[in-house]
Amino acid sequence: MKARVYISLKNGVLDPQGKAIGHALENLGFTGVNNVRQGKLIELDLASSDPEEARRQVGEMCEKLLANTVIEKYTIEIAE
Amino acid sequence: MKARVYISLKNGVLDPQGKAIGHALENLGFTGVNNVRQGKLIELDLASSDPEEARRQVGEMCEKLLANTVIEKYTIEIAE
Repeated sequence: MKARVYISLKNGVLDPQGKAIGHALENLGFTGVNNVRQGKLIELDLASSDPEEARRQVGEMCEKLLANTVIEKYTIEIAE
Repeated sequence: MKARVYISLKNGVLDPQGKAIGHALENLGFTGVNNVRQGKLIELDLASSDPEEARRQVGEMCEKLLANTVIEKYTIEIAE
């Protein structure tokens, strides 16, 4: 079973990396880019075959290791 | 218009960052994690209101700056 975790900064948290990407796009001539934010994507291949159990386990992984819940929010997507 | 870009390493490209996350999860007692791969998530807020035009523009951004197409693949998602 595959799981994908999308981790991004919470609204209101400054994102200097996103700002840098925004400036680089502007310098390359791309106009009309109002805002850029960068996050992380983590793909997990799990042995578990129960979607509910997988979601619970991945949620625990996010809380303990994958995301810094003080400044980051995460979304879990279970596939297959 | 919002666009999300998911960038991940192509299959076959070694992912030491993903491996490190996998080992850390194992050390924390999570079992049954076969494989972990880490990618990037970039959220763009675009002035354009035409989905087709937005997709074309973001594709160009990926080719020129956001993704290293030698080792990375990307997926574009246009919302709103």
